[in-house]
Amino acid sequence: MLSQEAMQDRYQRNIVFGVRIALADGQDSLAAVLGAINAADARCGIVDMAEELQGSVIYDLQVFTTGDEQMAGLSKAIEAIDGVELLEVADMAMEMHRGGSTVVESRIPIESNTDLRVVYTPGVARVCLAIKDDPKLAREFTGIGNKIAIVTNGTAILGLGDIGCVAGLPVMEGKAAIFAEFADVSAEPVLIDTHDPDEFIHVMEKIASGYGAIQVEDVKAPECFKITRELDKRLSIPVLHDDQHGTATIVLAGLYSALKITGKKMEDMTTVISGAGAAGTAIADLLLAAGVPDVVLLDSVGVIHRGRTERMNPEKEALAERTNKENFSGSMADAMKGRELFIGVSQPDIVSGDMVKSMAPNPIIFPLANPVSEISKDDALGAGAAVYADGRMMNNAIAYPGLFRGAMEAQVEKFTMEMLMAAAQTLADIVPEGDLLPEMMDPETHLTVVEAVKEAAKIPNAQPVQ
Amino acid sequence: MLSQEAMQDRYQRNIVFGVRIALADGQDSLAAVLGAINAADARCGIVDMAEELQGSVIYDLQVFTTGDEQMAGLSKAIEAIDGVELLEVADMAMEMHRGGSTVVESRIPIESNTDLRVVYTPGVARVCLAIKDDPKLAREFTGIGNKIAIVTNGTAILGLGDIGCVAGLPVMEGKAAIFAEFADVSAEPVLIDTHDPDEFIHVMEKIASGYGAIQVEDVKAPECFKITRELDKRLSIPVLHDDQHGTATIVLAGLYSALKITGKKMEDMTTVISGAGAAGTAIADLLLAAGVPDVVLLDSVGVIHRGRTERMNPEKEALAERTNKENFSGSMADAMKGRELFIGVSQPDIVSGDMVKSMAPNPIIFPLANPVSEISKDDALGAGAAVYADGRMMNNAIAYPGLFRGAMEAQVEKFTMEMLMAAAQTLADIVPEGDLLPEMMDPETHLTVVEAVKEAAKIPNAQPVQ
Repeated sequence: MLSQEAMQDRYQRNIVFGVRIALADGQDSLAAVLGAINAADARCGIVDMAEELQGSVIYDLQVFTTGDEQMAGLSKAIEAIDGVELLEVADMAMEMHRGGSTVVESRIPIESNTDLRVVYTPGVARVCLAIKDDPKLAREFTGIGNKIAIVTNGTAILGLGDIGCVAGLPVMEGKAAIFAEFADVSAEPVLIDTHDPDEFIHVMEKIASGYGAIQVEDVKAPECFKITRELDKRLSIPVLHDDQHGTATIVLAGLYSALKITGKKMEDMTTVISGAGAAGTAIADLLLAAGVPDVVLLDSVGVIHRGRTERMNPEKEALAERTNKENFSGSMADAMKGRELFIGVSQPDIVSGDMVKSMAPNPIIFPLANPVSEISKDDALGAGAAVYADGRMMNNAIAYPGLFRGAMEAQVEKFTMEMLMAAAQTLADIVPEGDLLPEMMDPETHLTVVEAVKEAAKIPNAQPVQ
Repeated sequence: MLSQEAMQDRYQRNIVFGVRIALADGQDSLAAVLGAINAADARCGIVDMAEELQGSVIYDLQVFTTGDEQMAGLSKAIEAIDGVELLEVADMAMEMHRGGSTVVESRIPIESNTDLRVVYTPGVARVCLAIKDDPKLAREFTGIGNKIAIVTNGTAILGLGDIGCVAGLPVMEGKAAIFAEFADVSAEPVLIDTHDPDEFIHVMEKIASGYGAIQVEDVKAPECFKITRELDKRLSIPVLHDDQHGTATIVLAGLYSALKITGKKMEDMTTVISGAGAAGTAIADLLLAAGVPDVVLLDSVGVIHRGRTERMNPEKEALAERTNKENFSGSMADAMKGRELFIGVSQPDIVSGDMVKSMAPNPIIFPLANPVSEISKDDALGAGAAVYADGRMMNNAIAYPGLFRGAMEAQVEKFTMEMLMAAAQTLADIVPEGDLLPEMMDPETHLTVVEAVKEAAKIPNAQPVQ
């Protein structure tokens, strides 16, 4: 396993290729190929001997690059090496997604006509009538108790913007694959082809009875607020918007860990958030619920405050009411002065070292903009940051599989702030000393979240999420 | 493998229980249990020794019954046998559907952070952008090329009527399990909670981009006609209503086989169909397309003919225009006189032996009403029927997995009559001599349908299905 540091460096090279080469015997050509990769400023990951033939050996290399251009140059360099034949260059992301990243399987072996007649007609009629008589049995005798809809209209896919729901489908399928692998949850992409939030709500409401929970995904602000809130209000199954609540949960988990590392206290964590969209708004709400004393948010116009008129909307008006206690207004630089915690969900490179220096001593810096953060690690640490995490380290997928599995197992009708806080707290509790978040790949991470959510589901009079 | 005759008898007993018993050593109690099952007029299927303990043996028995009452009586009888302990009685249909009959799995191993970053963010962005630039790539780099929606509003679930879409979900899941097992197709139930056909169409249209094809399922007539026709017209993916076109395909396959058995000719097959709903209408249209000279349909009022005013609707008006050449009107008994082929998709026990006797010599009788057909096999054969098949033998699931897989592999935008006819013809071609339909459990059956549909997809100027 690579160190987080090394991974971070490598992931500046986000485009991964699988390269197959044939090396003639008796030459030190593998070393030459690795040298070429290094000279091209790419990185080699896994090296795997695929086959030994007479007179040659076939190798598969995983190569991390900045993109097609770098790979094209590297291909030429490899082809020029004596005794090396370049057999294939495959784009790994495209290859992994070929045919889709999930599949629906039968849970029941159908090996005889009797099996068929029990699982399907006429046997199934008995199951249908049982559910008709007692609709609650649907959770027990169909898949809906463990099935979620991952629903999008394609308006805010990753950092790519409004590329449409079909172009966003690989993201939804990737999430579904993560749900399957890490929480044994059946998740299905639902693409709603509309820009009208009311139509989105109407369509989802009409098909909601087939699911046990809903994850709203990559819907742009401010429409995402109304959509998530209305669905949560109208339906009796839990609804989260991952870009809001998934992100907020992970940020809070990172903050709990950072407090442990620095010895600071939640009640001192004056916070500035750059970005007042889906993520920024939900982070502000969750931090306030968790005991942060005050949050100031900025959007592209500046600080959100009561009385501001430029580029406001009802969501931001409401946000101004519940944040920014002192009704401060000013620049980003002004906003950061003396505060303990900076969270960025906005633009690359908009925070300077001087701004960090102006914060409270040993501040906590979470600049999460993707793929390039608000301030680099070197600049932030150089300016005195005690804890730094960017978007690569703060991965929602550590939280959402367990959040949904836990909520469905607890059979709650709504997510609550208490569930998000419990998930964040448990993630911080199990983190190895000095780290911010536990290992995503460890199944224990997700099981722990499930249990924390189920416990939190028992808390009476919990606060609604929306 | 039981004979078809024996299976048919057994399936009068549709409710299957799993019975676990402990037998004390040294007594012939297993025979006594089997005797009790027989005395109760139930049937024993598989007998399986589960465990040998000191002093006793545990057996699992599969018991076919007419329902709870019969099983309760049988349980008492078993408990009364010396040396037998009744440990458990489980309703097999309920148990098989517990937790749902399908599951969504990842097709991609996610075993490292690198895997995660290729399948999900940031790697997935590359796949999204490729699809944005060329939407056709969605078929290649997402799952939609092999994924169907099984969509219902719950208004005509099996023979149970309008029990609501959640109570119908076990049927949709059962179909999805069959799609997975027999055609490697990912199928997802979509429950649209509305009685309004326009709203149904609107909702399905808005979410259609997530699927490669649509199977409309258990929607009542006449709404099913508009829904299926409009979806087919508006969307560029194939749409079938299984109760219409799946049934019609199987009936035509059975007819092709029956012609082989009897040496009769399609162009002589004057036909009477009892039932003018979803199935009857589609069967009429497919038979006419396949060369049957004339079809007369009856509903609960009587023969559908031009000029009839009672209980007509636009669908039946149109049906009267394209069937019943001589504009015949009269009773069921009148309609059957001299005709070659009877198909029933209506009510139990409405056809008499005398009616069969009045038909052309050696007629073909397909009384498909479920669970009790329009005329029993004994009565039909006794009255001179040359070929008989009821709903238990005519199973749509022999056709639809291959129909959908074939249409999606051929990447057609519509199903055509030619595809349905080709599927029917190929099923008759591979049937063992003397049988009507090939074995559902044989994977070859479904592969053959796939290939036939793909071939038929090449036919120019084919006739639309709707």
